[in-house]
Amino acid sequence: MSKQERVVLRQDESGCCPTLLAAPMDEDRAVDLAKVFKALGDPVRLRLLSMIASRAGGEICVCDLTPAFELSQPTISHHLKLLKQARLIDSERRGTWVYYRLVPETTDRLSAVLTRPSEPATTTGATS
Amino acid sequence: MSKQERVVLRQDESGCCPTLLAAPMDEDRAVDLAKVFKALGDPVRLRLLSMIASRAGGEICVCDLTPAFELSQPTISHHLKLLKQARLIDSERRGTWVYYRLVPETTDRLSAVLTRPSEPATTTGATS
Repeated sequence: MSKQERVVLRQDESGCCPTLLAAPMDEDRAVDLAKVFKALGDPVRLRLLSMIASRAGGEICVCDLTPAFELSQPTISHHLKLLKQARLIDSERRGTWVYYRLVPETTDRLSAVLTRPSEPATTTGATS
Repeated sequence: MSKQERVVLRQDESGCCPTLLAAPMDEDRAVDLAKVFKALGDPVRLRLLSMIASRAGGEICVCDLTPAFELSQPTISHHLKLLKQARLIDSERRGTWVYYRLVPETTDRLSAVLTRPSEPATTTGATS
């Protein structure tokens, strides 16, 4: 995900989020979704997202994120940029500092994508 | 994830799945969880998982997976191995072929991890 553009998770015809588990996923949707999961596929980014999402008040200053990691400010900024490109977080500059907040619509969609469909697949065919 | 060992997602004290969004995640949990998200961070693996999970009967022969992709059998096998190492799928050899099935406990946990806590964070502190 070297480009600057944001990922937009496609919606199905109902305007919501087709689960990964109910029907084979088409290639375009898989490409979009993989970018978001890839953004989550790093422990530093998961911890950053967790710190941002759980912050009382709903947002956190970058100045409070950096000291929690033994990493340089540019490295933290790079991870935050990848989370932002995946639309997992958003940011706002106010004065000297940038403040980050969760984009709950994205995590809601990911959670829905991983939810088993309420109707199980027809159990025809061989099972062990 | 070059090693062969499987990822085991850690449980919290209640035996379940702490959400990523309720409290800052510790480093060990983040390392485990990132491996599973990383396994999902590829469109071919997402499509493979989707085909496996949605198959009537709950399992699919590798001989039915390969023709859906313009990729070599070793490449498909490599992606399947990564999904299996992340415990997203399991496999069983019967005769000539290997059959794959979803490990729903893993996707259930990921879905839970991405679910917002029912109680919103206390809204003290600055909001825009």
